[in-house]
Amino acid sequence: MASNSFGTLFRITTFGESHGPAIGVIIDGCPSGLPLTVEEIDRELQFRRPGQSAYTSPRAETDQVELLSGLFEGRTTGAPIALLIRNRDADPSQYETLKNLYRPGHANFTYLQKYGLFDYRGGGRASGRETVARVAAGAVAKKLLAHYQIDCVAFVAEVGGIAAPSPDQTDLRTLRAQVRLSPVFCPDEKTSAQIAACIAQVQQENDSIGGIIGCVAHIPVGLGDPVYEKLEAHLASAMLSIPATKGFEIGSGFAAARMKGSEHNDPFDVDQEGNVFPKTNYAGGTLGGISTGAPLFFRVAFKPPSSIKKPQETVTLKGEKTSFQTPHTGRHDPCIALRAVPVVEAMTALVLADALLKNRIVPL
Amino acid sequence: MASNSFGTLFRITTFGESHGPAIGVIIDGCPSGLPLTVEEIDRELQFRRPGQSAYTSPRAETDQVELLSGLFEGRTTGAPIALLIRNRDADPSQYETLKNLYRPGHANFTYLQKYGLFDYRGGGRASGRETVARVAAGAVAKKLLAHYQIDCVAFVAEVGGIAAPSPDQTDLRTLRAQVRLSPVFCPDEKTSAQIAACIAQVQQENDSIGGIIGCVAHIPVGLGDPVYEKLEAHLASAMLSIPATKGFEIGSGFAAARMKGSEHNDPFDVDQEGNVFPKTNYAGGTLGGISTGAPLFFRVAFKPPSSIKKPQETVTLKGEKTSFQTPHTGRHDPCIALRAVPVVEAMTALVLADALLKNRIVPL
Amino acid sequence: MASNSFGTLFRITTFGESHGPAIGVIIDGCPSGLPLTVEEIDRELQFRRPGQSAYTSPRAETDQVELLSGLFEGRTTGAPIALLIRNRDADPSQYETLKNLYRPGHANFTYLQKYGLFDYRGGGRASGRETVARVAAGAVAKKLLAHYQIDCVAFVAEVGGIAAPSPDQTDLRTLRAQVRLSPVFCPDEKTSAQIAACIAQVQQENDSIGGIIGCVAHIPVGLGDPVYEKLEAHLASAMLSIPATKGFEIGSGFAAARMKGSEHNDPFDVDQEGNVFPKTNYAGGTLGGISTGAPLFFRVAFKPPSSIKKPQETVTLKGEKTSFQTPHTGRHDPCIALRAVPVVEAMTALVLADALLKNRIVPL
Amino acid sequence: MASNSFGTLFRITTFGESHGPAIGVIIDGCPSGLPLTVEEIDRELQFRRPGQSAYTSPRAETDQVELLSGLFEGRTTGAPIALLIRNRDADPSQYETLKNLYRPGHANFTYLQKYGLFDYRGGGRASGRETVARVAAGAVAKKLLAHYQIDCVAFVAEVGGIAAPSPDQTDLRTLRAQVRLSPVFCPDEKTSAQIAACIAQVQQENDSIGGIIGCVAHIPVGLGDPVYEKLEAHLASAMLSIPATKGFEIGSGFAAARMKGSEHNDPFDVDQEGNVFPKTNYAGGTLGGISTGAPLFFRVAFKPPSSIKKPQETVTLKGEKTSFQTPHTGRHDPCIALRAVPVVEAMTALVLADALLKNRIVPL
Repeated sequence: MASNSFGTLFRITTFGESHGPAIGVIIDGCPSGLPLTVEEIDRELQFRRPGQSAYTSPRAETDQVELLSGLFEGRTTGAPIALLIRNRDADPSQYETLKNLYRPGHANFTYLQKYGLFDYRGGGRASGRETVARVAAGAVAKKLLAHYQIDCVAFVAEVGGIAAPSPDQTDLRTLRAQVRLSPVFCPDEKTSAQIAACIAQVQQENDSIGGIIGCVAHIPVGLGDPVYEKLEAHLASAMLSIPATKGFEIGSGFAAARMKGSEHNDPFDVDQEGNVFPKTNYAGGTLGGISTGAPLFFRVAFKPPSSIKKPQETVTLKGEKTSFQTPHTGRHDPCIALRAVPVVEAMTALVLADALLKNRIVPL
Repeated sequence: MASNSFGTLFRITTFGESHGPAIGVIIDGCPSGLPLTVEEIDRELQFRRPGQSAYTSPRAETDQVELLSGLFEGRTTGAPIALLIRNRDADPSQYETLKNLYRPGHANFTYLQKYGLFDYRGGGRASGRETVARVAAGAVAKKLLAHYQIDCVAFVAEVGGIAAPSPDQTDLRTLRAQVRLSPVFCPDEKTSAQIAACIAQVQQENDSIGGIIGCVAHIPVGLGDPVYEKLEAHLASAMLSIPATKGFEIGSGFAAARMKGSEHNDPFDVDQEGNVFPKTNYAGGTLGGISTGAPLFFRVAFKPPSSIKKPQETVTLKGEKTSFQTPHTGRHDPCIALRAVPVVEAMTALVLADALLKNRIVPL
Repeated sequence: MASNSFGTLFRITTFGESHGPAIGVIIDGCPSGLPLTVEEIDRELQFRRPGQSAYTSPRAETDQVELLSGLFEGRTTGAPIALLIRNRDADPSQYETLKNLYRPGHANFTYLQKYGLFDYRGGGRASGRETVARVAAGAVAKKLLAHYQIDCVAFVAEVGGIAAPSPDQTDLRTLRAQVRLSPVFCPDEKTSAQIAACIAQVQQENDSIGGIIGCVAHIPVGLGDPVYEKLEAHLASAMLSIPATKGFEIGSGFAAARMKGSEHNDPFDVDQEGNVFPKTNYAGGTLGGISTGAPLFFRVAFKPPSSIKKPQETVTLKGEKTSFQTPHTGRHDPCIALRAVPVVEAMTALVLADALLKNRIVPL
Repeated sequence: MASNSFGTLFRITTFGESHGPAIGVIIDGCPSGLPLTVEEIDRELQFRRPGQSAYTSPRAETDQVELLSGLFEGRTTGAPIALLIRNRDADPSQYETLKNLYRPGHANFTYLQKYGLFDYRGGGRASGRETVARVAAGAVAKKLLAHYQIDCVAFVAEVGGIAAPSPDQTDLRTLRAQVRLSPVFCPDEKTSAQIAACIAQVQQENDSIGGIIGCVAHIPVGLGDPVYEKLEAHLASAMLSIPATKGFEIGSGFAAARMKGSEHNDPFDVDQEGNVFPKTNYAGGTLGGISTGAPLFFRVAFKPPSSIKKPQETVTLKGEKTSFQTPHTGRHDPCIALRAVPVVEAMTALVLADALLKNRIVPL
């Protein structure tokens, strides 16, 4: 089944394996006339790049994008935009010892069952490396959104039970600055330090740890569509398509299950210009699947990475029980949530760009 | 934007407003040769029907389905199956008092902004009444799944902070029986009583309460597709498309954010026939978006219903602040999670039927 | 495979068998605010209705549409519009004698091979009766198009080798009036009489005859999309989806194969307001798959209907050679092209409505 | 609007401009386990390559494909297959003189109207150069089809009114050999010589000429789906998406309009093994949109190429009337139909691969 496209009107199709020659994406449906440079895309990739801090994997990809189509004299033409990122630091040899095992928490078990064969080198298509294409495409989506004053910022909200206070949703510039300053992409300075210590500890134990990413977006009223194309349905789908995700919640989320209607209903108010808006935002920015104009706010749960350097039980492809541990030379992240910040942001931008184009099909 | 279809190969398209003449669905892509009766669909609708207990709204719909196409001599023909359910107890008059207000927690604000007009009678297309079409279609999906020994059971897991113990995931027959016996669709008898008391109390306060629905499915290995079509991405989208949902989590879900890899990784084991399987199921039944053969397990958060009989602040369509309360004659549910049990089950069946057909496109 | 939907943004899904209880369609994606009445749809169905003249089959369907959803106070709401047409004159008994035969030129052979069973009554889903849903949906598309001054007229261009002169493409009102006046829907009076005589003759011989439908549309510049979504690709697909069609050509069509570039290239000219336009229209209204603003012009070939009252050789379902003839009581058309005029028009309107919505996704 | 994808289950997405850095395609949905080599793709590209004979344009592209993903140890993995073809002989300078003109018969008029800007170098995305990606993807589709004994052969059937006799549809190997031997891809030797002479003459006149491509495919019974997804509807759409096409006809095609039912109906017969088949094949291989098992046969009309070296009238972008001629240094084809043979074959393979996967969703 074709399963490598995302979006309807602003639509991406991605390809490439972790240890193959390249990762890439075709962006189809971007309106013409948008100014765009390779540097703008590289900048987003830079933010995602591994090996940047003590807390992420040391794989040393330069991740420079080659723009193959869709631009003319610095502007998009309406034609598909193809972006290519060569894999330069691929080192499949380190996977030799793992190729005959079902790796706990990994997709090689299911891929082998489904496809009869598996590109074991670095997880092939199931690798987190695949997300570089999402971030590259997200950079283009963000450029389009910026034209409409739409912006979104993702951040680390919680790691290993250490939760940052809920950030101010009204000022995205400040929020972004705080996130970029933090070594663990958490807007709260104090929590950042605690999370950094937690990750260092986990790393020392040859273990890994889970986390939660939050995301706030400023969008106009009216994005999203009724019934099966609700904005939150698309966001949920986008987030659960990111490797290692286990949950999605919007606004009050799972906490809503413990609330009463009289608490949870966001009363409408009206400002001096006569604009109606919800006074509180338990809804998280949508009603009936359509944006209210209040900040969009949601959270995404990430499991602890499955590749750990502690011994684990498993079974060989031949069906024999065995014990193994991920080689110490392997390049793995102790907390994938940290790496996922730009990915959540990119997928949000892709959902919003698609919703924006759908909504520009205005009523009479 | 066309937004009323769900699924790719097993595909439904629904229509109908809460207080219009009828609700209906076209099911396109059901394989030929499947035995099917109207009674089987009616039985599922019966389970969803309002006015069944003290804990659900008193709207008295008979909800009998008319089958308009797609069957010949008791079997599906491969042609689209159209199902029609007439609205018999529609009473738009009760909405007269609400038609000039933005109703907190309701979609009339966003629909008015997006479409310029709104069928205020009972929420129109944004009404929970729309889900009757999902349940009818789900009945057909379940029949198809049963042919492949696939089954799923949804249940009330938590209401207002009162949580049932996690049910046994291995025996779906018993689980289903427990759910159907409980007046609040909760498989645990003791918790059922507590939840019933909680709802009665909330009802007396003219308020409403949130809840969490759990769902377990038994499915073969190999359902779901890589990257953007992961099984959990489709489930998340399906669940967040149900009115009043605020969150989705699979397996360990948000709890994964507090776990270490050494705890969370499900070790593989092998049984005496040589079948490999995960010993624990923190994953919730998928790896890399593809089913492992372990039980699929996920949870869905529902907000407290927005229609409450307590006074609430809001703004009129003309922009004046006002206070109002949902009329006491209105037919509203104190806990929509209860009503959502068959809807969650139906949407699960629709996702699985689609994944099943996609997976029958077997490798060489 | 789900195969009963057409269009992307203006999207229809149809259902119903020739001799089942009803035929119907859901129109999803129609913008809100469009005034619409049941009468407008009935009027289009009236034009398609069988039994209107000596030259079409005597099946006596009233074909009155029931509008089940999507309207509020006389205007579309943006919600799906469901239309239901009951089959009142269904008489499956006449198909008893045919049910054990492979009928030459009919789909029961392929349906039986593909689905293992076949609703033999009147052709089931393969019947021309299915097109009533297309015409009903087309009526809504036409209403939307009219809002944008887009119009299209189909007509009989040729029957059994008798060809009408190419009509004036500039005045659609006159063309429509001529078509509606003709008993055989041919705008040229003299050719009409010849075609009528030809059909009468064929009918007397218990035979049938093929024909060609032409269609002219007035549309703005810019409809259609590059590469795989060219306007003519969608038109070709739409036309070849109509039962009994064998070919499609746009502008010069197959005659282009005998032309030189210096003849075929339409030179550009400029009018006094500075509007650039092609002086001739061999292109038929598009260049590179996108409309030029010149009249869209294309033709569709229809085979002679397969149901004839002459003896024919065939094979029974058990594999025995046999001879048969369609019962004289059967209600069949001697020239299906005549009946297809409103169907071609409806499918054109559906393609154009979809292209229009796609194009309203304007460049920056 | 995203418009650069084709197919549903076997799905391609293409990108790249005529004079940009590269052309490419992602093939998504190819089943795993298919042996595939770069050489097999190169061989198909070789057949399409310009500059091969006196009768095609002298652009000297080597057209070697780089395979970027989706293979592991010589077999497809089920992951997307990305193919990249660098443009090496791009020479945008020759388009400088044309960039301020609306070119008759070209898409720059419509692209400028629709997108506000146009990559004038060689037609950008509207160039025939785009079809190299179709041929590359078609090579993969053909490999998949071969596994199921499905084959197709396209050929020149007519140029400038010179028509070859209809070829034997039963022996595709011989037909392919005849086509590949002919300098003008026409299976009939005598007609080949006449067509070659015609093209030489046209070339000398600085003019161009149209033609018709025929295609025969051997496919099993059951491909294609009812109503809007008929096999011929997909073929028609595929063919009309190829640049310069003006028409499509299947089986009897436009000639059906002059035939009677008693002539046109293909009688069923039964062979000694009890297999039922149509004795004649006016249908062209389908009934009700589903393949009968008889050879699929259709024809595609191509206009004469618009780029000619004769003087032509037109208008400048500023709206002034002018005269121009395509520079003699430009690399243009006198008869694009010749170049289109492998493109028609590739698009046929893509339609059939998609139909094959759809049909493997077998009835119960």
